[in-house]
Amino acid sequence: MSNRGQGSYGGLMSLGGSRTTSTDESVLDALQQDLPDGAVSFDADVLSTYGVDRAMFCPAGKALALVHARDRAQVQHVLRVASRYGVPVVPQGARSGLSGAANAIDGCILLSLEKMNRVLEIDVANRIVVAEPGIYNAELSRAVSDVGLFYPPDPSSWEFCSIGGNVATNSGGLCCVKYGVTTDYVLGLEVVLANGEVLRTGRRTVKGVAGYDLTRLFVGSEGTLGVITEVTLMLRPASERPLTVAAVFDSASTAAAAVTAVVSCGVTPSLLEFMDRVTVQAVNDAFNMGFSAAAGALILAQSDVGGDRSVSEIKHMAAVLEEAGAIEIAVADDPAEGDLLLAARRGVLTAMERLGTTMIDDVCVPRTKLAELIDRIEVLSAECGLVIGVVGHAGDGNFHPTVVFDAQDLDQVATAKRAFDEIMRISLELGGTITGEHGVGLLKIELLEEEIGPVSLGIHRALKQALDPQGILNPGKIFAIKA
Amino acid sequence: MSNRGQGSYGGLMSLGGSRTTSTDESVLDALQQDLPDGAVSFDADVLSTYGVDRAMFCPAGKALALVHARDRAQVQHVLRVASRYGVPVVPQGARSGLSGAANAIDGCILLSLEKMNRVLEIDVANRIVVAEPGIYNAELSRAVSDVGLFYPPDPSSWEFCSIGGNVATNSGGLCCVKYGVTTDYVLGLEVVLANGEVLRTGRRTVKGVAGYDLTRLFVGSEGTLGVITEVTLMLRPASERPLTVAAVFDSASTAAAAVTAVVSCGVTPSLLEFMDRVTVQAVNDAFNMGFSAAAGALILAQSDVGGDRSVSEIKHMAAVLEEAGAIEIAVADDPAEGDLLLAARRGVLTAMERLGTTMIDDVCVPRTKLAELIDRIEVLSAECGLVIGVVGHAGDGNFHPTVVFDAQDLDQVATAKRAFDEIMRISLELGGTITGEHGVGLLKIELLEEEIGPVSLGIHRALKQALDPQGILNPGKIFAIKA
Repeated sequence: MSNRGQGSYGGLMSLGGSRTTSTDESVLDALQQDLPDGAVSFDADVLSTYGVDRAMFCPAGKALALVHARDRAQVQHVLRVASRYGVPVVPQGARSGLSGAANAIDGCILLSLEKMNRVLEIDVANRIVVAEPGIYNAELSRAVSDVGLFYPPDPSSWEFCSIGGNVATNSGGLCCVKYGVTTDYVLGLEVVLANGEVLRTGRRTVKGVAGYDLTRLFVGSEGTLGVITEVTLMLRPASERPLTVAAVFDSASTAAAAVTAVVSCGVTPSLLEFMDRVTVQAVNDAFNMGFSAAAGALILAQSDVGGDRSVSEIKHMAAVLEEAGAIEIAVADDPAEGDLLLAARRGVLTAMERLGTTMIDDVCVPRTKLAELIDRIEVLSAECGLVIGVVGHAGDGNFHPTVVFDAQDLDQVATAKRAFDEIMRISLELGGTITGEHGVGLLKIELLEEEIGPVSLGIHRALKQALDPQGILNPGKIFAIKA
Repeated sequence: MSNRGQGSYGGLMSLGGSRTTSTDESVLDALQQDLPDGAVSFDADVLSTYGVDRAMFCPAGKALALVHARDRAQVQHVLRVASRYGVPVVPQGARSGLSGAANAIDGCILLSLEKMNRVLEIDVANRIVVAEPGIYNAELSRAVSDVGLFYPPDPSSWEFCSIGGNVATNSGGLCCVKYGVTTDYVLGLEVVLANGEVLRTGRRTVKGVAGYDLTRLFVGSEGTLGVITEVTLMLRPASERPLTVAAVFDSASTAAAAVTAVVSCGVTPSLLEFMDRVTVQAVNDAFNMGFSAAAGALILAQSDVGGDRSVSEIKHMAAVLEEAGAIEIAVADDPAEGDLLLAARRGVLTAMERLGTTMIDDVCVPRTKLAELIDRIEVLSAECGLVIGVVGHAGDGNFHPTVVFDAQDLDQVATAKRAFDEIMRISLELGGTITGEHGVGLLKIELLEEEIGPVSLGIHRALKQALDPQGILNPGKIFAIKA
């Protein structure tokens, strides 16, 4: 798997050096011609920084230039220049992605949308927000919260991930179990196409079936079909601060059955998270949280309906969890106490990072396969001799098995990579998917074909060809360029 | 607007007659070769019956043959034959559509999926149903209800529309205001492509972002991109029988403000319907329902959360409606009483049909534009001298203005058609869409371009070309074939 040199533009430049080709110079001249001073960067350090997202084990090429677009017209200009010279373009939000979708391709233009970060409109009565793609999830969430509205999708990275990136990867989060994922909130998009044309998709109404669902074709397309320059999102009325119940189980299988019980109990929790033995013990060791050594799994559930009903929902879920065999239960009928309980979940990554370098997978299985997933990952962990902790959004069957390894030990690195891939294969065998919310990027290209098969892959390529005939938009991401 | 002779196959046969061309005969021979006896029909009456759906003012061509497919392999066979001879194929469910999407094209093969109508699997624990496309919405709904589950999308035609058709048009219904539309429930599809290949899209998990969202590209594509042969749908836990509140207002504008108040009141109604003065008086005249002559609009709202909470939700909405100026309120805290209240809504079409031939439009506007929509339709009604009643799913801003005319009077027919189109233009001017749930088919092709614009239309054509290079799948539906 490599994305190097796959772009239709094969030119390389020695970063910060002198071996710029004449084509490169023409591209740079053309780029700068209609962009303000400072919009185009060539600095080697800057290009190196912007050349990667947060993914591990993904190749990153050397970019020709970085453009910070300030408006749609500048994005159009970049794509027109890229089309003219056949140069690949890598659109970028906050580069918080975990699968390499924003990594540089040799000779590419990195097109950063991070400075297009304004809220353009909040229509309170119709519960709609229109925003530029570069705004951070948390910033947008706070802006709409200020007027009594609620944008639910809440990836863990919400303080440092952009809405455009959320749309491009169809991000999830902790509240999906009740509120759904990003695509459920995207009403419409403005997209600059490969040739620089501007496409508007969707609508501002709740319902609409006029033509193909172009909006959702772009959602999750990881920058391979167009550059999103504006998003229109549906909002909900503000919810209440949640109350929380935490339940300790002696084993993952008992906890898994408890998840099924909660999902069927008549209450829709606003959060339903799972931590396995490894992650519970890791946060216990790291933060001295007082879990007993017998704690084999932890389930956290929340209700955000508000008032007495939140209290009764939490108590009902506590009863269901107890009935399902919890060995210890804590009910926080005060939001602040709930935050303390949730600290265990929030601390997982930090705690795991104390054990070594971590590589976070992202698989989704049918909810009923949770126990089997955990069992098989335990076996895998024993076989490969690496710690693997499992944490995740149990209510959706979406888990983040985290492989811990010594990045200095090349054997361990290779083993970790194999374990990472094997977790995806296990997920496929259980009827699941290789990615529930992080996307494919470069990291999961090979496994994607295993999941979707050759016919679907062919359709992916045909759609890419239809929208981006020159193949300049983030080529080699999601699926390899056809040999 | 015409779809006659637009297919790549231009041959005509005189139905039941002798002028079958040699190509036609080759097609028919090839079709029959791998299909069981009786699967292919040529009978003129049968072809004529199956040549139309329930749309008005839509052209219908003369089909070459009708095939009743029994399984995926037969669908593949039909598409392979069609590809070989370049014959258009019109996929059909229950032909309950209102926009002509299932109408015959000259020389086409009508491919009926109505005999592929089995429930293949209900996975109770994961809340999934897998079914063939021909099953009626009501049959599927009852099958999952029998095991305590709930398939929400509920078009008014649910007793005689198929799930495949629901998916192909992304159907809505009365409960969308709380539960969303068809696309929100489609997890995955099996689709036979134009060349006969089988594509599987989507997944069986709650979340998943592996590759493009092909599922939702097919949802709402009205048979122009592939033939759906299996659907995997997400289900919900069973809801309770709803309680109902009905509120009479003296004017549409007061009622419109009340809709906004209900939507923002903290309760999510499971139904929020609106009837204007014309429709209220029509049902009053038809069924002697006891509304006063002062009744200028009616709002119906339901709660299905169950138990005491349903009662309190209904009472809360009643208070909000009263505060918003209702002149009369009826609260039914018994489901059967609620059914009586809802009879007014259910009786609208029958009542309007007493006044003349009816043509039902389907527009969706931002919720806050309801009053303006009603006002402008009243003006239009006065201008064109035709009765136009407005009824609809107020909570979603999705309305069905119904134009009444004398089908024997050609002037009135033309005026009605103009009024129908004008209603869509008004909707566009109010920031809405030309169709909220009925689809484009043949009926709204010209207006579609007005809504989506030339760039989007170009992308539609590029996607169609990518998936159906020969243009054999329902050509000329949704958008005209390029001149």
